[in-house]
Amino acid sequence: MKIQSARGTRDFYPEDMAFRQWLVERWREASRRAGFVEVDGPELESLELYTDKSGPEIAEQLYWLEDKSGRKLALRPEFTPTLARMIAARQAALPEPIRWFNVSRCFRYERAQKGRLREFFQWNIDLVGVEGEIGDAECISIAVDALKNVGLTPADVQVKVNDRRLLGALVRHLGIAEERVPQVFAILDKRAKVPPEALAVMLAEAGLESAQREGLERILAWQGLGDIEARELATSEIHAAVEALNRLFAHLEHYGIAEWCRFDIGIVRGLAYYTGPVWEVHDLKGEFRAIFGGGRYDRLLGDMGGKAMPACGFGCGDVVLGLLLEERGLRPAAEPAADCFVLREKPDWPEMLKAVRFLRGMGLRTQFDLKEGRLKRQHEKALESGARFKVILGEAPWPRARIIDSRAAADGAMKERVADLAPDDPEALKNLKVFLGVGAS
Amino acid sequence: MKIQSARGTRDFYPEDMAFRQWLVERWREASRRAGFVEVDGPELESLELYTDKSGPEIAEQLYWLEDKSGRKLALRPEFTPTLARMIAARQAALPEPIRWFNVSRCFRYERAQKGRLREFFQWNIDLVGVEGEIGDAECISIAVDALKNVGLTPADVQVKVNDRRLLGALVRHLGIAEERVPQVFAILDKRAKVPPEALAVMLAEAGLESAQREGLERILAWQGLGDIEARELATSEIHAAVEALNRLFAHLEHYGIAEWCRFDIGIVRGLAYYTGPVWEVHDLKGEFRAIFGGGRYDRLLGDMGGKAMPACGFGCGDVVLGLLLEERGLRPAAEPAADCFVLREKPDWPEMLKAVRFLRGMGLRTQFDLKEGRLKRQHEKALESGARFKVILGEAPWPRARIIDSRAAADGAMKERVADLAPDDPEALKNLKVFLGVGAS
Repeated sequence: MKIQSARGTRDFYPEDMAFRQWLVERWREASRRAGFVEVDGPELESLELYTDKSGPEIAEQLYWLEDKSGRKLALRPEFTPTLARMIAARQAALPEPIRWFNVSRCFRYERAQKGRLREFFQWNIDLVGVEGEIGDAECISIAVDALKNVGLTPADVQVKVNDRRLLGALVRHLGIAEERVPQVFAILDKRAKVPPEALAVMLAEAGLESAQREGLERILAWQGLGDIEARELATSEIHAAVEALNRLFAHLEHYGIAEWCRFDIGIVRGLAYYTGPVWEVHDLKGEFRAIFGGGRYDRLLGDMGGKAMPACGFGCGDVVLGLLLEERGLRPAAEPAADCFVLREKPDWPEMLKAVRFLRGMGLRTQFDLKEGRLKRQHEKALESGARFKVILGEAPWPRARIIDSRAAADGAMKERVADLAPDDPEALKNLKVFLGVGAS
Repeated sequence: MKIQSARGTRDFYPEDMAFRQWLVERWREASRRAGFVEVDGPELESLELYTDKSGPEIAEQLYWLEDKSGRKLALRPEFTPTLARMIAARQAALPEPIRWFNVSRCFRYERAQKGRLREFFQWNIDLVGVEGEIGDAECISIAVDALKNVGLTPADVQVKVNDRRLLGALVRHLGIAEERVPQVFAILDKRAKVPPEALAVMLAEAGLESAQREGLERILAWQGLGDIEARELATSEIHAAVEALNRLFAHLEHYGIAEWCRFDIGIVRGLAYYTGPVWEVHDLKGEFRAIFGGGRYDRLLGDMGGKAMPACGFGCGDVVLGLLLEERGLRPAAEPAADCFVLREKPDWPEMLKAVRFLRGMGLRTQFDLKEGRLKRQHEKALESGARFKVILGEAPWPRARIIDSRAAADGAMKERVADLAPDDPEALKNLKVFLGVGAS
């Protein structure tokens, strides 16, 4: 009986896996260049780790189960709660600032659709213990490094930066009560996904008067930070928030990534825990959901049971980024699985296995026909493998072999040579290594 | 409120994660050297994928849940059923033989104890489409390559090899009925874990007469393949099984790994699906559970709904291997997270960030003090980071910096130099790169 895979999950055949690993390695490179270290936690956590932070309704969007002892366990929907738990457990012993990154498999029980799956991978950067815009700029610079690293340019994507303190000050300045701000933020975060009329209805239902709604509309139409000062909205709170954003943009310029970034008063982020700068990476054409989302969350660690510590970071999923790279033709082709394919004229396992052992011992990825096929079939298998070198045994006595380089350029490069596979002579071994491109030193 | 991690799961702080990644990379190297490619599947699969293969009682040892549509989903306890599902889905299109490897996070709901956790990582090698002992030998050679790769020797571990066809023929030759063989195998697999008297009781309860039990005891006392021929048990079936094992051991010798491997009539493997050679890797002192388990399973793919295909492979978990490496002092120390730490005499973010950008652009993992500390504090942070190079700005005008190599040997190696961090002169850039050990070419 054939069993299907579960909805919203993926099988990673060799090509898909090669792409996934390529992407993860690009994430790791960007993280490590900035001196971040990798951490991980369990995929199975107590359900309360998520309900404590986000309320019991989050359980609706999670996969969770009750074990035989009645403990409720959830599959992690994101890494941040685990991070907070791990930091709280060793807070006194961890050197500050904490520069951690993580590549998680995460699970969300929601409708599977374009750019959204139930099982996905997420890259997280968290910088804990750093106050001020330099921390936010450091995180954004790592995100941009990763974007460059996968071949994207400022013509493909943009980092849209805002600050919740600015938006909050502006909203309050419109006379909207403090306790309504979270609700207004939640509505504004839906702006890209619903028509303007629907948004207006939601805002009216949230109790905003028409002058307040118009004020919001005017604010959301701003194109740059300069527009703010022009409109005399500069209360001291707004002024301070604008100053902070100016400092952030100055850092981004010194990181050399100004052309990747722009101010966008409409960026809010859905999660409640952000306290300062918030930002998202979007494709310029606006075809996809946000590719990255990040910001500052100075209260989360304290709220989750640890000592309060300033913190900022971001997450980036593999699904939307993968779709974008695919669409831009930036998904690299998978490498062949072998460097060498060993063939032999006559069946002779001992000689074959000695040759394989010798080549693998040199670090070469080596295949051979495990089915004892005829030489013609072996040549077909060698071709199918994509291996660069064919190593043919049996034309001369062991350990002599003929080696053909299928990728040697026509002009001058040596296409084939006869060599011993167990050379006594160090000079001959060196020549063989050069031909096979091993340990180029 | 502090929330604990779930029982039988692990947090991977930077050092633990570095070790996990190191181990996974050693597995990957051994896999790739043999020309295998990485694949993966979901961690969340239909529960029936496991109950179909192993019977409904397996659900007791799994984490599973029912989703809102009433579908039962399980967290994978192993990768093989996913592999079988993936192969069945594309059987016609996949080039043969299939050389796949996988590193899975797996979940088992069983008592957490030494060497056994509820969440663990497992390396799998599967070679599908190859009949005969050459396939089994190829798999064993990959396992041994990985053992070497983590620093173990034949003085630490041994591959214990048997063949179910041999043990089956011997058991039948004792007059034990065919339908009792699986039960006898299951009892024999427990041999290392229960006292001999308990084993005798279980065998008696399985209906074995005392002569049959004594016969089994005699067989299990054999030390080598040679003992078999000496006892005139050579029915044609036994003879064929011994011949097959001899071929397997000849291959292992030609792979150059004979000293790692020995015959052990007592190796059975718990899983029902093995059909030929079976093997385990054990530490020589017998302190730990089996480190690897593998064998041939020629019927599994057909039974799981695909076309029948010969197959062999193995699995290796991270927990027991990790304990063994720890105990043998083979767990490598984690690398520092940074190559360079940039310091500056006076606060000046623009110069700092330009320097950081330049060094990261060269591929160097670069940290700096994000807290605008005094120079003394910056030196402390640099030391804490473990970075090899201190890059000190501000003693001379930008882009000039003093660079100190904290690891330069006393004898002759250059310990420090002054250089421009944005050199116009290609020769100066080359010298800087040599000093920093970048792109040694």
